[in-house]
Amino acid sequence: MTRYALTLEFDGAPYMGLQRQAHGPSVQQSVEEAVFALTGETTGMHAAGRTDAGVHALGMKVHIDIQKPFTPFTLSEGMNARLRPHPIAVVGCEVVPDDWHARFSCIGRSYIYRIANRRAPLTLERGKAWQVPKPLDAAAMHRAAQILVGLHDFTTFRSAHCQSQSPLKTLDRLDVRREGEMVLIEAEARSFLHHQVRSMVGCLALVGLGRWDERKLAEALEARDRQALGLNSPPDGLYFVKAIYPED
Amino acid sequence: MTRYALTLEFDGAPYMGLQRQAHGPSVQQSVEEAVFALTGETTGMHAAGRTDAGVHALGMKVHIDIQKPFTPFTLSEGMNARLRPHPIAVVGCEVVPDDWHARFSCIGRSYIYRIANRRAPLTLERGKAWQVPKPLDAAAMHRAAQILVGLHDFTTFRSAHCQSQSPLKTLDRLDVRREGEMVLIEAEARSFLHHQVRSMVGCLALVGLGRWDERKLAEALEARDRQALGLNSPPDGLYFVKAIYPED
Repeated sequence: MTRYALTLEFDGAPYMGLQRQAHGPSVQQSVEEAVFALTGETTGMHAAGRTDAGVHALGMKVHIDIQKPFTPFTLSEGMNARLRPHPIAVVGCEVVPDDWHARFSCIGRSYIYRIANRRAPLTLERGKAWQVPKPLDAAAMHRAAQILVGLHDFTTFRSAHCQSQSPLKTLDRLDVRREGEMVLIEAEARSFLHHQVRSMVGCLALVGLGRWDERKLAEALEARDRQALGLNSPPDGLYFVKAIYPED
Repeated sequence: MTRYALTLEFDGAPYMGLQRQAHGPSVQQSVEEAVFALTGETTGMHAAGRTDAGVHALGMKVHIDIQKPFTPFTLSEGMNARLRPHPIAVVGCEVVPDDWHARFSCIGRSYIYRIANRRAPLTLERGKAWQVPKPLDAAAMHRAAQILVGLHDFTTFRSAHCQSQSPLKTLDRLDVRREGEMVLIEAEARSFLHHQVRSMVGCLALVGLGRWDERKLAEALEARDRQALGLNSPPDGLYFVKAIYPED
């Protein structure tokens, strides 16, 4: 048995989420079926994060165990051939120790959220960004975002379905910048609560629109109450960028 | 009657091309139907360029004549509402003089071509770039591209279906640069022949792969013969960026 760490890029639009679901297609199902088609082996895929329906990934890290011998190159080529026509690609592959775990060994995760700040409906970016028609003040959003950085009880920014034992998380970075009509929000932490990035982005958008000020955002955080959440942003704009491990 | 210049953004994937076609959907048909839905008027759309099936636009300029009164804002909002769910959006709208013509008044056109230079299949970029698996030397492509800049007989780089009276065109700019895994090619001219950008990109890719050198490219140009073309690139990576007018 050899353990391989795969870096996956995928378009989340056709999936109910990364994790295998009883009621619809998932990234995990497609990957496990590709492994079976390639090797005849039944394996379980483990991922650094659990992304929701419609959420994309540029560099999701997962691991799989395989008996049949492969080099990282032949495995990624074989997987990519079997993954077609799914919009999932293996963009990196390496052999890792048997005790390395994509989820439990991971010490950092980063996301990017893309807002298309324009009146016109999206065409080429459809499903790949959140369209906000009214002008956003990205500088005000960045200033307000700094309120959320650090160790906090993020109950307000946590889905009712969140399975994390504690709502206490340390947010390492939350940067907002404008690039033309796009407003980009980058978030980094050891780990995130369910819906945390989308919930933070939703409230930052309210700040960017001038409907919330920094005091209102601070109050929402301090409330530790999901009812205090102003807005949850849609999944379309969210991308899992990178998982970080001690050896990186 | 008022003449409006619209700036269109569209995803070319679902269309047989920009121009109305008997055998399938076109951007022109969708736009003319949106005008009819909005105004009850039958109008003909005229465009700065005629893009092929699968070719995208970031800023295609077109004009339409409408009797019913609109401000540019109400026209673009009304058009965008009626264009749904088509991946076509009005991203700019202005009133122009009655003798202004999107095609005949245009004095410059620019395109960008996007090559995803990577082994892994495309996921988020599927249909939006040309995937070239082997490494491309973008610097060598840029140097070779300068052979094509200037006034030339571009017969080699012209489709058999090209309706232009002359194969003589002045290419003002052809720049190649790498941004991460993407190789971007920007082309500017007063006008282009049918398939000219895709044909030039195809041959530059051969240079980038080391299969052609600059001498081979110069010979292909001098041959003035479609048979001398090395490779025509697919439409997926091509974007009409901008049309330029004397008043700009």
